[in-house]
Amino acid sequence: MTNGSEKLWGGRFEGKTSPAVEDFTESVSFDYRLFREDILGSMVHAEMLLKKNLISHSDFVEIRDTLKDIEKEIEAGSFEFDKKHEDIHMNIEAALIDRVGEPGLKLHTARSRNDQVACDLKLWTRKSIDSVVELLRDCQKALLNRAEALSDIIMPGYTHLQHAQPVLFSHVLLAYVEMLERDRRRLMECRCRLNVCPLGACALAGSGLPIDPDFTAEKLGFDSPLNNSIDAVSDRDFAVEFVYCLSMIIMHLSRLAEEWLIWASHEFDLLDLDESFCTGSSIMPQKKNPDVLELIRGKTGRVYGNLMDLLTTLKGLPLSYNRDLQEDKFPLFEARDEVGKSLSVFTQLISSTSVKTKQAESACEKGYMDATALADYLVCRGVPFRESHQAVGAIVRHAASMDKKLCDMTIDEMRRFHELISEDVYDVLGARNCIENYCSKGSSAPRLVKEQIELWKEKL
Amino acid sequence: MTNGSEKLWGGRFEGKTSPAVEDFTESVSFDYRLFREDILGSMVHAEMLLKKNLISHSDFVEIRDTLKDIEKEIEAGSFEFDKKHEDIHMNIEAALIDRVGEPGLKLHTARSRNDQVACDLKLWTRKSIDSVVELLRDCQKALLNRAEALSDIIMPGYTHLQHAQPVLFSHVLLAYVEMLERDRRRLMECRCRLNVCPLGACALAGSGLPIDPDFTAEKLGFDSPLNNSIDAVSDRDFAVEFVYCLSMIIMHLSRLAEEWLIWASHEFDLLDLDESFCTGSSIMPQKKNPDVLELIRGKTGRVYGNLMDLLTTLKGLPLSYNRDLQEDKFPLFEARDEVGKSLSVFTQLISSTSVKTKQAESACEKGYMDATALADYLVCRGVPFRESHQAVGAIVRHAASMDKKLCDMTIDEMRRFHELISEDVYDVLGARNCIENYCSKGSSAPRLVKEQIELWKEKL
Amino acid sequence: MTNGSEKLWGGRFEGKTSPAVEDFTESVSFDYRLFREDILGSMVHAEMLLKKNLISHSDFVEIRDTLKDIEKEIEAGSFEFDKKHEDIHMNIEAALIDRVGEPGLKLHTARSRNDQVACDLKLWTRKSIDSVVELLRDCQKALLNRAEALSDIIMPGYTHLQHAQPVLFSHVLLAYVEMLERDRRRLMECRCRLNVCPLGACALAGSGLPIDPDFTAEKLGFDSPLNNSIDAVSDRDFAVEFVYCLSMIIMHLSRLAEEWLIWASHEFDLLDLDESFCTGSSIMPQKKNPDVLELIRGKTGRVYGNLMDLLTTLKGLPLSYNRDLQEDKFPLFEARDEVGKSLSVFTQLISSTSVKTKQAESACEKGYMDATALADYLVCRGVPFRESHQAVGAIVRHAASMDKKLCDMTIDEMRRFHELISEDVYDVLGARNCIENYCSKGSSAPRLVKEQIELWKEKL
Amino acid sequence: MTNGSEKLWGGRFEGKTSPAVEDFTESVSFDYRLFREDILGSMVHAEMLLKKNLISHSDFVEIRDTLKDIEKEIEAGSFEFDKKHEDIHMNIEAALIDRVGEPGLKLHTARSRNDQVACDLKLWTRKSIDSVVELLRDCQKALLNRAEALSDIIMPGYTHLQHAQPVLFSHVLLAYVEMLERDRRRLMECRCRLNVCPLGACALAGSGLPIDPDFTAEKLGFDSPLNNSIDAVSDRDFAVEFVYCLSMIIMHLSRLAEEWLIWASHEFDLLDLDESFCTGSSIMPQKKNPDVLELIRGKTGRVYGNLMDLLTTLKGLPLSYNRDLQEDKFPLFEARDEVGKSLSVFTQLISSTSVKTKQAESACEKGYMDATALADYLVCRGVPFRESHQAVGAIVRHAASMDKKLCDMTIDEMRRFHELISEDVYDVLGARNCIENYCSKGSSAPRLVKEQIELWKEKL
Repeated sequence: MTNGSEKLWGGRFEGKTSPAVEDFTESVSFDYRLFREDILGSMVHAEMLLKKNLISHSDFVEIRDTLKDIEKEIEAGSFEFDKKHEDIHMNIEAALIDRVGEPGLKLHTARSRNDQVACDLKLWTRKSIDSVVELLRDCQKALLNRAEALSDIIMPGYTHLQHAQPVLFSHVLLAYVEMLERDRRRLMECRCRLNVCPLGACALAGSGLPIDPDFTAEKLGFDSPLNNSIDAVSDRDFAVEFVYCLSMIIMHLSRLAEEWLIWASHEFDLLDLDESFCTGSSIMPQKKNPDVLELIRGKTGRVYGNLMDLLTTLKGLPLSYNRDLQEDKFPLFEARDEVGKSLSVFTQLISSTSVKTKQAESACEKGYMDATALADYLVCRGVPFRESHQAVGAIVRHAASMDKKLCDMTIDEMRRFHELISEDVYDVLGARNCIENYCSKGSSAPRLVKEQIELWKEKL
Repeated sequence: MTNGSEKLWGGRFEGKTSPAVEDFTESVSFDYRLFREDILGSMVHAEMLLKKNLISHSDFVEIRDTLKDIEKEIEAGSFEFDKKHEDIHMNIEAALIDRVGEPGLKLHTARSRNDQVACDLKLWTRKSIDSVVELLRDCQKALLNRAEALSDIIMPGYTHLQHAQPVLFSHVLLAYVEMLERDRRRLMECRCRLNVCPLGACALAGSGLPIDPDFTAEKLGFDSPLNNSIDAVSDRDFAVEFVYCLSMIIMHLSRLAEEWLIWASHEFDLLDLDESFCTGSSIMPQKKNPDVLELIRGKTGRVYGNLMDLLTTLKGLPLSYNRDLQEDKFPLFEARDEVGKSLSVFTQLISSTSVKTKQAESACEKGYMDATALADYLVCRGVPFRESHQAVGAIVRHAASMDKKLCDMTIDEMRRFHELISEDVYDVLGARNCIENYCSKGSSAPRLVKEQIELWKEKL
Repeated sequence: MTNGSEKLWGGRFEGKTSPAVEDFTESVSFDYRLFREDILGSMVHAEMLLKKNLISHSDFVEIRDTLKDIEKEIEAGSFEFDKKHEDIHMNIEAALIDRVGEPGLKLHTARSRNDQVACDLKLWTRKSIDSVVELLRDCQKALLNRAEALSDIIMPGYTHLQHAQPVLFSHVLLAYVEMLERDRRRLMECRCRLNVCPLGACALAGSGLPIDPDFTAEKLGFDSPLNNSIDAVSDRDFAVEFVYCLSMIIMHLSRLAEEWLIWASHEFDLLDLDESFCTGSSIMPQKKNPDVLELIRGKTGRVYGNLMDLLTTLKGLPLSYNRDLQEDKFPLFEARDEVGKSLSVFTQLISSTSVKTKQAESACEKGYMDATALADYLVCRGVPFRESHQAVGAIVRHAASMDKKLCDMTIDEMRRFHELISEDVYDVLGARNCIENYCSKGSSAPRLVKEQIELWKEKL
Repeated sequence: MTNGSEKLWGGRFEGKTSPAVEDFTESVSFDYRLFREDILGSMVHAEMLLKKNLISHSDFVEIRDTLKDIEKEIEAGSFEFDKKHEDIHMNIEAALIDRVGEPGLKLHTARSRNDQVACDLKLWTRKSIDSVVELLRDCQKALLNRAEALSDIIMPGYTHLQHAQPVLFSHVLLAYVEMLERDRRRLMECRCRLNVCPLGACALAGSGLPIDPDFTAEKLGFDSPLNNSIDAVSDRDFAVEFVYCLSMIIMHLSRLAEEWLIWASHEFDLLDLDESFCTGSSIMPQKKNPDVLELIRGKTGRVYGNLMDLLTTLKGLPLSYNRDLQEDKFPLFEARDEVGKSLSVFTQLISSTSVKTKQAESACEKGYMDATALADYLVCRGVPFRESHQAVGAIVRHAASMDKKLCDMTIDEMRRFHELISEDVYDVLGARNCIENYCSKGSSAPRLVKEQIELWKEKL
């Protein structure tokens, strides 16, 4: 029973694998990260084999205890990985066999790496989802805390990066809380969908041995065992879906980062970024650069690239397992790491950032942001909106030519454009009045924004 | 109250828009597709204005009836769109004003194109989700029908495109039913998440007029009105998410198409594609090409490209509305159209395709697909799996050198590699025996596959 | 010689193509754009057949004249396309046969749609390259004209969107001229690489008929005929490469658009965008929005998506022709159209934009942009740069705490941080001095920038 | 001259950088790979400073010798990197200062990390281009060697993965040689375009010190120094372009891999992959899996993802340097590594693969691949091609119904479909005759393919 190959799968091979091929095909240099999941999966698999009398109790004990030892060694960094054994799965199995002999030879009964790796990867992804959900909550809380602390500050609301209407700074922050809430929900649904256990699919067709997929599924915290063994080993939807969810998160962060980068410029001058979140220049002694925000924005490309990577890999891939799937780990690991780090550092940065209240307020004086309020004023006096819009447009044009704010115009000046304007018009002009007059659901009205803050405080 | 511009928004402008700019910025040439949603949204908005006494009942009736007329004209192709009015929203509003005068001038009260277009787009996407969900179900049914009709046919199961273990053709089809089921669920969750009404957000800050966002939300079938006006006009998550869901669908279809393209080759010769789904060659008289399958596979790039398009557009986009968002329609419309057409034609193709039973069966004789069964046979006789795997590997090597199938080897030949092999080994060798011996949940066992078929028949 | 099919390729088919399949597989609704190239290619092909005595002179004359008629009809919009004939190639051939009978039946001698479509597509791409090269040059010229006209204006140079060092506005514009120059070169190389004629490859293997690929190649303006018939019909590298080149262009335009969007904000207030390139708001009467710039930025996603589309389509596509390749046209056409329009409108916008000189100059007073000049001043007095950098950093910190500019500090104040500072320091402080003191190659020195302008004027 | 920060740039900072920020912003854990380029660049920069009398000769010697020492230590793995110093550039500079004191403080004179990193990255990319060009040539040679060794083998040529016309196996291999040749050219042009030295741009505006960019450019092997300092530090076109070139290469490899995977299936059975390039299964003892080919195909997604990453990062990025650019290294390094490894292992695999001649030949008997030859036969006898195509289509239909090959039909049987068929028809039927009759330029004719082989042997 010898063979030319040194591999556990080498029975039918006469010669050895080319070393170049070993280097090219090995994955243990990156999939070692799955060791906890692999060992957990193997212990539960062994327990099932015991339950179904496919191994003895003493076999089980030896397997379980040795796997635990191996886990500790890997955690401690004292386990030696060998590229010859290709991946984390074979490295652990080979070590087990090496240490306990025959019982170890039985572990892979009614199991293939195809269902094993799918299981390990699902366990890892599930754990990662849980931790990103927590990071999202932390980030939402940081936004919420800032929103509460700075709830009275008004600033220009922008459309097309132009002054549009005044808004509360806290209202802007809550917009991001909403986005991240969608991200959290999306992740939780992704978790539900992935939570089907592939163990028992074996290579692709299931097994003729009397195994118990319900048992392994339940013990590993899955909602149900597989329905279809071919799908179980071919499916990487959960990986794409997780990376898609991460892409949405980084997209949201990139929008926030972009806003804050612009607001932190000398010209906008709305934000005070804490020095500890900035860096200097190697040549220009005066620089205080918002590098953290730029890096978060810059990491968007990576995460998007990871999504495109996975989708490309799966395009036109016939069932069932193909080795292309080994490449799923890079984008999965990388996207999770990058988004995790970005969320974490952004949360800290948010907590340490303050708004330059005066600058924000004085910025509100530019750009005729009360023009819509003036148009609505006329609507309330029976003027059709389009007519009112035209009239106010003309007033703005006139005011701009004189370099005056609307509230600095006289009633007579304004009445030249519409006769229904009277003294009470000054109650709607100016940013603070605009804010106070908002009343519609979801608007930037101080009372409603405070209600939202309270609601979120309960939810988070 | 004249102005140089001819636009509804032109009050503050002195001159006209450059014609090149009009051509470049217009969107009515593609967003006209939203006309039903726009008119529905406007009618409900008008009803709300009436309810809140912002317009009179006669205003409302004129608006409603004229919008209905306009809808009919657009459906009939007799409405004339004008690029000067930029988009579908302004085209309809301008026509309304043109026809009814003053009441029309009131429609845009407490509304901006920013919340209007978000609302229209959500209505369109919701409708599209519903129809793709139906197309998925049809495709699942077609797969299920074939699975039921062809439930006894065995064929090689592939891993690495190499013969692995025998499976039932119906089992493969059900793997695709599983995939499409995930696609359906994903779409339904996407629908839930989008179903928040943006109306009332106006430009970005909400309104100071006494509007009723709960009313419009409910009338338009949304689950709730907006919580945050800034998010409401900035958010295009639902568009990305829908296109992501469509990307997963086309990815699944591309996997099925690829499999069938390979199976329809002269060499695999497993499928009989109906002639009406094939085309010929302009030069080679003998050709019968599976173009439909190739085109479906080929459309994957388009849909992925649309996903990347939307993600790129949103990267680093500051809040709230920016004109970049106008570009969301192309990828959204295109992805929905391509996936819709692909699903529909694939469903028909599936229903008309049959399997070449004999070829499938005889293909099962190649590749030693019963080797795993033989290894399991030894496991049942107490041999540790790895030992058994090695022994069977050697048997296969020997058999291959003699160009024999396993079931054609004598007991003695086999016993040379493992003494525990005896006469009953022939009960596990051969593809049909393999299939019959599968017993684990989710496996390719005929009984279990039939159970799955029954379950799916109930579900779909 | 009848058959059930109505197709030119239908000889071996008994039944008709399914109408759903006809709709799904037709491409004439979009590839009709290739009609000029198709007709040109066919005329040259016919001329070659004549030269090689494969058709008679009268056959040739009939073919040529009728093709010219068809071309005129298509140009005039009076030609009726029929989806039954699938694509532009078959539509034209069918019309030819319909009109001239037997000579038309001979046109497709020693030709397949596989080499025909590759040829047509290359001709179209070559023409498109030429026109984009021209549009790039126009855009460069517009930038150059502005650079010349505004060559004295100084403004803040930004790194990390923070004030870094003063630069000439013209120097910034020339940076874009450099980028677009790389784009032009890239396109010209793409043109060279594509300029190999695929005609003669036929289906994939070449022909046994005595054709003359050198003749057709030369007549169609190709640099050489094919070397390998399989590559000739499988290759779409030129399409990917063109769309890649377009992606680089739109990426560059998106950078310029982003800069100008930021500079056109109320806060930066550096640019005066002509009103005719802006639009208003449906609700906010005061708005003047830079939509053209936003749309150009927004179109980046489309072009990137088109690149990803093509790459995805070609991934793992076996040789030689597969119908997936039909899908190459959408991304190719769309990317060319979007970039063409964007370049053209951007060129006009550039020409009509002016800089707010005063605001630019006064912006230069913020952010201690002369700090590097001060550090260099110390270097010239023998201070190691790192020491000088530290000292100036401390000076800036001190100046900022007193809210003073560097040039407003007294010598004594400065000397507290470094004793080598003396009266002549004021010659290096302040933005204008910085600019005047630049002297290195490629720097923002007025004299050198003017030299660059002269060089570009010669080149373009 | 103390400050709260420990950074070389920390003069103006009062406090320290947050450790979380240090972790998040550091890049030395991956950009350490640029150490050779950084040290080379610094030595040349120092030489220029000496030449321009900005440092003394003894300063230069100390800098140069210490940098050489540092290089050796990094190569030997004994250099200690410190995240506190952020990147490879600051790590090396800090070590230099630490070792030599004052001369080290002078190295960064008239230099910023902005131009330094651009320079280092260009040097690294240039070197990488050169090595990929070599790997491409090796792969072409391997293909060419196989083509020469197996030049007589015929096999089915495929379109739509269906039998089309017979071709030479060597002709297929040469199609890949053509593709890789385009890849090589593309890289060489990319090299030319990048070969402009950014040194001297400093932060973004150039320098007021009397530096000599021509000198540094020439010494570092660049074709010219920068023309525009802003472009010089903002530009990452060369990185995108290199990754684009790598995307094209992996796309080509994925096409080859896909073909060979299909050809290595039990059903096609055309290729004999060497065992040392295959792996086994953990559960199925008989498996010999073509994992190397699958992994190469699977790596396509990574490289495409890297391209999308870079394009996304650059989208809408304002000039000049922004920290987002730090993220350019991951996709650049990864794409180069993956493509390098894939090329290298593919080259070995190609050299060790042989064709199953008999199976290839017998596969040629299926699918009526001589139908086009028969149609051309009639064309030579004056039949218009379309008429001939129809007739042969009918013959094929008839032959298929009798399960006969064309060459097994009698003259009478054939003449029923066209009277111009006579005895000499058998000279054109059958795969070998088809091959022998090809005569057009670029076709699969043995003589012409051999000519191509000779031409390539000279070129490579």
